[in-house]
Amino acid sequence: MKVISSQKHIYFFSTEMNPVEEVYPGEKVVFETIDALGGNYEKIDFSKVNPATGPVYVNGAKPGDTLVIRIERINLPEKGVIVTGKGFGVLSDEIEGFHTKELKIEKWAVFFDNIRVPIHPMVGVIGVAPEEREYPTGTAHKHGGNMDTKEITEKSTVYLPVFQDGALLALGDVHATMGDGEVCVSACEVSAKVVVEVDIAKEEIKWPMVETNDAYYLIVSLPSVEDALKEVTREAVWFIQRRKVIPFKEAYMLTSLCVDIGISQLVNPNKTVKAKIPKYIFSEV
Amino acid sequence: MKVISSQKHIYFFSTEMNPVEEVYPGEKVVFETIDALGGNYEKIDFSKVNPATGPVYVNGAKPGDTLVIRIERINLPEKGVIVTGKGFGVLSDEIEGFHTKELKIEKWAVFFDNIRVPIHPMVGVIGVAPEEREYPTGTAHKHGGNMDTKEITEKSTVYLPVFQDGALLALGDVHATMGDGEVCVSACEVSAKVVVEVDIAKEEIKWPMVETNDAYYLIVSLPSVEDALKEVTREAVWFIQRRKVIPFKEAYMLTSLCVDIGISQLVNPNKTVKAKIPKYIFSEV
Repeated sequence: MKVISSQKHIYFFSTEMNPVEEVYPGEKVVFETIDALGGNYEKIDFSKVNPATGPVYVNGAKPGDTLVIRIERINLPEKGVIVTGKGFGVLSDEIEGFHTKELKIEKWAVFFDNIRVPIHPMVGVIGVAPEEREYPTGTAHKHGGNMDTKEITEKSTVYLPVFQDGALLALGDVHATMGDGEVCVSACEVSAKVVVEVDIAKEEIKWPMVETNDAYYLIVSLPSVEDALKEVTREAVWFIQRRKVIPFKEAYMLTSLCVDIGISQLVNPNKTVKAKIPKYIFSEV
Repeated sequence: MKVISSQKHIYFFSTEMNPVEEVYPGEKVVFETIDALGGNYEKIDFSKVNPATGPVYVNGAKPGDTLVIRIERINLPEKGVIVTGKGFGVLSDEIEGFHTKELKIEKWAVFFDNIRVPIHPMVGVIGVAPEEREYPTGTAHKHGGNMDTKEITEKSTVYLPVFQDGALLALGDVHATMGDGEVCVSACEVSAKVVVEVDIAKEEIKWPMVETNDAYYLIVSLPSVEDALKEVTREAVWFIQRRKVIPFKEAYMLTSLCVDIGISQLVNPNKTVKAKIPKYIFSEV
């Protein structure tokens, strides 16, 4: 299996990036990642946060395709760190100073002092070369990026729109656990190894999507959480309307009845929301 | 058990309401409710939507107390209705006309044509006399009201701040199932029977709270979803800070690590959000 060293990383998803490796559809790859603070939380360089390992050129991926990334395994280290401070998070104006806290990680739990928080490994940043301009790796949009979505976890599949030849996949910012919202600006930040299988689908999507055993999650990231919630609702209705071949009004009602609109993160430059579409609606009686 | 007939209902939670019944702490009561459309969806009078059965005077409840309502049982009928149309819901400006659809309810599922949606009985409107002014039963705020929160279900406990003598409890707007967001403005609307046990706690709370087996949900309703998300984050941090007796910065970090910020509904005059605080953080190792 090809291994992408954490020394090969980016701070911007740009239309033109130099790939550090190339893979073929169906190939498995290991990404070694550095934590969101740059690997040394005692000496944070804020111009170098959220590094994403890569980018990797996927042979055959063309604009208009969808990149399919199956998260096979996330190997966590034995400790992580959480940080917050003035100017950070939902309550950025209600906290003083800058604070870091080391967290011990065991097999099933992250220890916040003597409080056991169940482990939930997830990939915070995963993205491809965008359609235009460049996005810092700390920002999320249609190309993916810093979506900080809990469902991007082991055994889930991430779908990203391909905008440039080879897609140019990069990922990082792994968390050992996180609450929806990531309200203080960080979670249990770790350097980790992520094993993925990469594939291509000859289908076009507008926004990133995550598939789990029982649901599809549509993921929308925009500057205003209100706009993001409206857009993800629109996308959920359209997803159901198209897949079930029913009128808009029927899809709108069905969305209201069974789709859960939720929050991924409220603290990055673009806020990320999700719509959980249960798979059972596609198996009629 | 006392039964409150659905003929005794209100359209406003006001500081001064005439109680239709009185109960004592520890007493069980049956509320017969009319659906949110007023019981006849073929002839909706929009000045009479979201009726709440009651109000009931709880002996001994004083301003500054907390009313404790255990939802024992929600008995559903055999059919419900979902409605939407121009001017309604998250996509109010993208839909034309007005539409209603009858839904068959069986033991485990609501049928949307031949799509089975799992049953999830819940109480949409539950509230008390507010601190000041009056709120239509379609609006949610500190007194409760139209919170449309899925966790207000069988076997959960609702906590409401008491602002007036006797609290003056009323409830209605039962749903047989609903997705978080309730995006089209309604869910599976039903007339139902709700059995609750009412109690009083001599403790003060600021916003409504719901307790389930494994978590506390803080519930905040404000005109802007962004303001509501900030306020519910602030409340979650404060809840953890006070109960665990830890500094603000520690509580802020712990909230980020394990509290899920979520959406209840996006379609009423005040939007409702929730913070799920897991109970495991209160059992240290």
